Amino acid sequence: MTKKIVLLPGDGVGPEVVREARAVLEQVGRTFGHTFEFSEHAIGGAAIDSHDDPLPKSTLDACKAADAVLLGAVGGPKWDDPKRKVRPEQGLLGLRRGLGLYANLRPVRVHPKLAAASPLKADKVEGVDILFVRELTGGLYFGEPRFREQLEGKVRAVDTLEYTDEEVRRVVRLAFRLAGPRRKRVTSVDKANVIETSRLWRETATEVHKEFPDVALEHQLVDSCAMRLITAARSFDVIVTENMFGDILTDEASVLAGSLGLLPSASLGDGTNGVYEPIHGSAPDIAGKDIANPTGTILSAAMLLRHSLGLTAEAEAVERAVDDVINSGARTADMAGAGGESLSTSAFGQRVLGAI
Amino acid sequence: MTKKIVLLPGDGVGPEVVREARAVLEQVGRTFGHTFEFSEHAIGGAAIDSHDDPLPKSTLDACKAADAVLLGAVGGPKWDDPKRKVRPEQGLLGLRRGLGLYANLRPVRVHPKLAAASPLKADKVEGVDILFVRELTGGLYFGEPRFREQLEGKVRAVDTLEYTDEEVRRVVRLAFRLAGPRRKRVTSVDKANVIETSRLWRETATEVHKEFPDVALEHQLVDSCAMRLITAARSFDVIVTENMFGDILTDEASVLAGSLGLLPSASLGDGTNGVYEPIHGSAPDIAGKDIANPTGTILSAAMLLRHSLGLTAEAEAVERAVDDVINSGARTADMAGAGGESLSTSAFGQRVLGAI
Ligand SMILES: CC(C)[C@H](C(=O)O)[C@@H](O)C(=O)O
Ligand SMILES: CC(C)[C@H](C(=O)O)[C@@H](O)C(=O)O
Repeated sequence: MTKKIVLLPGDGVGPEVVREARAVLEQVGRTFGHTFEFSEHAIGGAAIDSHDDPLPKSTLDACKAADAVLLGAVGGPKWDDPKRKVRPEQGLLGLRRGLGLYANLRPVRVHPKLAAASPLKADKVEGVDILFVRELTGGLYFGEPRFREQLEGKVRAVDTLEYTDEEVRRVVRLAFRLAGPRRKRVTSVDKANVIETSRLWRETATEVHKEFPDVALEHQLVDSCAMRLITAARSFDVIVTENMFGDILTDEASVLAGSLGLLPSASLGDGTNGVYEPIHGSAPDIAGKDIANPTGTILSAAMLLRHSLGLTAEAEAVERAVDDVINSGARTADMAGAGGESLSTSAFGQRVLGAI
Repeated sequence: MTKKIVLLPGDGVGPEVVREARAVLEQVGRTFGHTFEFSEHAIGGAAIDSHDDPLPKSTLDACKAADAVLLGAVGGPKWDDPKRKVRPEQGLLGLRRGLGLYANLRPVRVHPKLAAASPLKADKVEGVDILFVRELTGGLYFGEPRFREQLEGKVRAVDTLEYTDEEVRRVVRLAFRLAGPRRKRVTSVDKANVIETSRLWRETATEVHKEFPDVALEHQLVDSCAMRLITAARSFDVIVTENMFGDILTDEASVLAGSLGLLPSASLGDGTNGVYEPIHGSAPDIAGKDIANPTGTILSAAMLLRHSLGLTAEAEAVERAVDDVINSGARTADMAGAGGESLSTSAFGQRVLGAI
């Protein structure tokens, strides 16, 4: 099988972690007899520097023509001024929207050997296994109108939070589908006691639930969800929520695992194409030092194998290899708090590759 | 000195905790020679039941005429259906807006004796002392338009997130003022890499900062703030943010203290009048059982003494009494995880009263 994978290394540590994930994918190709054709394209700050555009047309076209996209990270202090007209994040947002990737999957699983690295007490994080499904192309991120105006001597800024029932339905449906082979519980998160879009969200989720009678649905307010993620994370199975709430809650929950560097994500739409990326940022402070944790990107590559290429056994082989390497005591600097041997980005990547 | 205090017990455990805080205020009156005139009014679900209105005009009028307002909690399953036209929360939102209370102060301080009750490791919560300043009358909570429409066979719901520079300026200014006598650091939280109101927020905060050269200002994105509250809470002094971000982050941070029941809040405007309430909800599951923790409400009463009545020594006496009682080992059920003697709501309240 020949598959086209676009690599978007991006900024900061992006190139370093993508390099390791690519090496792992190549190993999977050799082991399982697949051919992966890789091509690299510019995005984010790097693309602003090279193309004056955080998402050059050539990049978007290549992503559209690919079977899957693996991304490193975008952004950095160099392009950080919020007053700039062109910002790295626009590359990421444009890519999500351009490919119609309305669902962002973020699994948060706490590896037993790394539970000690969590800022939470071990008994709070042991056994945590949450799958977030964050809506990714709606809400405040893309709503119109958004503008700034002069009004009676004041400046007024406006963003629009909008959802259609259709946008809610497709992402909630995906959450129910994903809950089926898991623990069959969906928590839909909203702020239905205050905002209108949340009331539509809640009603639509309740409606979609009828299609999935064997999966339980509960509604939770976003503020109390932010608490429960800390006090009782194990009580969640699948959490589905709108774009901004998802942005905040997934970052909060990532802390449970002990290191941001461990966590993968997948952004999916209606087809099989998707964008896979670690949830950590570009980490400019450690860029180029060969100390970033490649695990999040390698596990993103595993999600790519599963969701875009339909290669379940291959995905599991990668996940098992990561597990084995962590179980063997290998760590990158960010996980070192949990004890074990501290390795460079490339040395850790090589271990995973060797374990496949 | 004679001062008029309106009590709004509200729903669930509200009446029980307000009763204890009132008793504490009466004790303060006796000890320090003040006369507090109390009057009780209906709000929330209780007011829907009695007046068909979560904020009867008589209640709002009494609050406007008062020197300060002490609130218990609103809401409960009885009035919870999001399709209801009239909901308890509207009483609270109407009160905030009606009194022009644009700043919600929520101190999160971890009592050394209760650090063990936190789901976080003790070394993560020891010494945490954060003051949140949440914008309370703007943003998605009140922005217009907000509506639902039929559109090409779909249902579309819209909320509006809006801020003027003036609304940002007054609440950020208060944050800087409050940081002065503290550790002189303000963290302004936004999502300036995505939304327009956040860019206005960031620019305005930067501008206001010029008036307070001896206080440091940093900007932080809301998603990474949600992480940092768990990984490095001690690094915060004053956090200022918009309404919805504040709703989520303050609830998240409340977990640090070990029990929601401990935390007070104050909602302030330009005058001295304010609404004081514990940050916990109506907790219908434990209502009427005399086991709710009255500490959050009692500490809210202390904030009332300080901010609305200008009675600093009296406020400190209440705070010291609460400290003493906790140091002595007295606990309510929710704090029992930290060890010590478990008391009823009223017994705990009596202890505090006795310690003044
Ligand atoms: C970089 C930023 C625009 C992005 C977002 O807010 O979606 C990031 O925080 C994420 O969660 O992927
Ligand atoms: C009850 C609700 C409307 C309210 C809010 O969202 O402001 C509450 O969560 C709070 O934080 O005081």
